[in-house]
Amino acid sequence: MGPGVNVDGVPRRTIWPTDGGRSVEIIDQTRLPHEFSIRTLASVEEVAVAIATMQVRGAPLIGAAAAYGLCLQAQADASDSALDAAAETLRATRPTAVNLAWALGEVRAALRGLPESEREAAAWRCAAKICDDDVAGCRAIGEHGVKLIEEVWRQQAQRRPVEVLTHCNAGWLATVDWGTALAPVYLAHERGIDVHVWVGETRPRNQGASLTAWELLQQGVPHTLIADNVGGHLMQHGRVDLCITGSDRTTATGDVCNKIGTYLKAVAARDNDVPFYVALPYSSIDWSLSDGLTQIPIEERDGNEVRRVTGRSDDGRMLEVEILPQASPVANFAFDVTPARLVSGLITERGICEASRQGLATLYPERS
Amino acid sequence: MGPGVNVDGVPRRTIWPTDGGRSVEIIDQTRLPHEFSIRTLASVEEVAVAIATMQVRGAPLIGAAAAYGLCLQAQADASDSALDAAAETLRATRPTAVNLAWALGEVRAALRGLPESEREAAAWRCAAKICDDDVAGCRAIGEHGVKLIEEVWRQQAQRRPVEVLTHCNAGWLATVDWGTALAPVYLAHERGIDVHVWVGETRPRNQGASLTAWELLQQGVPHTLIADNVGGHLMQHGRVDLCITGSDRTTATGDVCNKIGTYLKAVAARDNDVPFYVALPYSSIDWSLSDGLTQIPIEERDGNEVRRVTGRSDDGRMLEVEILPQASPVANFAFDVTPARLVSGLITERGICEASRQGLATLYPERS
Repeated sequence: MGPGVNVDGVPRRTIWPTDGGRSVEIIDQTRLPHEFSIRTLASVEEVAVAIATMQVRGAPLIGAAAAYGLCLQAQADASDSALDAAAETLRATRPTAVNLAWALGEVRAALRGLPESEREAAAWRCAAKICDDDVAGCRAIGEHGVKLIEEVWRQQAQRRPVEVLTHCNAGWLATVDWGTALAPVYLAHERGIDVHVWVGETRPRNQGASLTAWELLQQGVPHTLIADNVGGHLMQHGRVDLCITGSDRTTATGDVCNKIGTYLKAVAARDNDVPFYVALPYSSIDWSLSDGLTQIPIEERDGNEVRRVTGRSDDGRMLEVEILPQASPVANFAFDVTPARLVSGLITERGICEASRQGLATLYPERS
Repeated sequence: MGPGVNVDGVPRRTIWPTDGGRSVEIIDQTRLPHEFSIRTLASVEEVAVAIATMQVRGAPLIGAAAAYGLCLQAQADASDSALDAAAETLRATRPTAVNLAWALGEVRAALRGLPESEREAAAWRCAAKICDDDVAGCRAIGEHGVKLIEEVWRQQAQRRPVEVLTHCNAGWLATVDWGTALAPVYLAHERGIDVHVWVGETRPRNQGASLTAWELLQQGVPHTLIADNVGGHLMQHGRVDLCITGSDRTTATGDVCNKIGTYLKAVAARDNDVPFYVALPYSSIDWSLSDGLTQIPIEERDGNEVRRVTGRSDDGRMLEVEILPQASPVANFAFDVTPARLVSGLITERGICEASRQGLATLYPERS
């Protein structure tokens, strides 16, 4: 696998500058797994639409995309008022992931005090650094997390695969490269450990079915798709050694806000003594919060995401079908909060710690 | 509502004899909510196919359909060997719901010792009694269960709706009439209680989205569709007063085998102190079992149920779309087991009892 994750054998990131640094390209994740389609974004408005429509998604990648959005704004108009307005537009696209606000803050801080003529170049440098740091951070998360998989592999004397359950997509496609929850899996696979991943389809947008399965296929990692309802049954029957998910926002006390349904897996893991780990970079920690359940805003998305399912028809076209009675109302909460008490540990770029204020303080003493 | 549940204002059952008692008709549940389509079944083979393909489903209705299957067999050939073979064919269609085996046993017992010439008429009488008993039993389940809803309504001084969460379809369509889990809801609605139902879509076959929502719409009961991932989040935020599900098989010790994903809701309910009740007729109690997790066979169904989603296209046709990468394997467990310790109580036609051997003995002393 070498320096990162491959698509059809070629290393790729999920976002990159192009056209001599005048626009950025992304993989349109709403077309996967059926089409591998690259889109060019040439303005902050196009970036905002790409984030809001989830052509790019995943907390770390949203942060990187927002940073590039400010680059495109600085290219068009680098005044403070224009940059503030662009940051506000980007911030409003998705309310839950804290990386978005974090990345906007990083770019704004990098430009502060610079003359307008120097801001565009500084923005591109800052966005590139955010991306490179994300890649390095995810790689480090992989190095720390793979020890958990290696430990299970040793315990069961390499006689059966290590069974990892994940939810949604916290892989390469959710970050710039490597992923968070999947980085340990990719490293384990690279090191010859027999690892198998249970992939929950992750309704309503099916990021497990369409993104995680596709990623794992590209890297040749054995996996099995399941409906979101199945994870508890597998744990009850000893078919899961380890759960690893990502996080869209983690409080200073270790509460984890992640894709809706994560909490159900965490509470089942506790009921079955299955370790439940959450992998995240420091950029998704919100040091200002102490209670995830009451303090993190939960995005409610369009009910059509539940009402309509996108897939490939037998004649090869991508289309949507409606699965509900038209008159039935829908609620579409996109995230839930897993209280720290249900989290076995947080895997960050600095190591693995207890999901608690004390645990995070051991890894991030400068914030405690 | 009167004697039962209505479709377009007309009282209906889910299965009934027709053609002067030479065949049976069913509602093809694989076409709902998009089409209300009635099918005629004229042989035991056709009944077996209707059960296996889930044109009829739901533990009590499967039992009723199997009974009618034996009627059609008795009409064609009422010899013991032919009836035994037919019973075997029917029994093999679905392994988990115990009502199937129970109903076959009831009909076989009713024919035992009768001359072949009298068996057909006896079979039709027995099947009709199974259906009538199911309707009466479900109505009684409703009468007992509605007290739970009335109690919440009183506690909150009728100031906000009573919020009931259910999973899959344990309504009218799962039985001959009224339903199990939904019978209390229908009675509460009839009595003017402001009741609102959270309906999990119930992947992979979407029985919540396509059947429960449709049923509730037909009776005018307020409801909201949610992805299966959402139930825990709602409970964490005090948005669920009561969970009620059905059961495909209940052990003598109160373990409940029901649609996959039920366990995840039960364990979340416990974590949030939300009462979790299971409604079932005596015909779905398997008195021979004491441990649901190890003793109940869990049906594994075709992976295409996960891989492909059926819905209505924008031009009004019903069609299937594929949502997974074609090379990704799928596991499709259809049921899971909720241990008795997570069940607040069992609602049966005889009353509400603790989910335990002792609890069931208070309602069914003749079996203890």
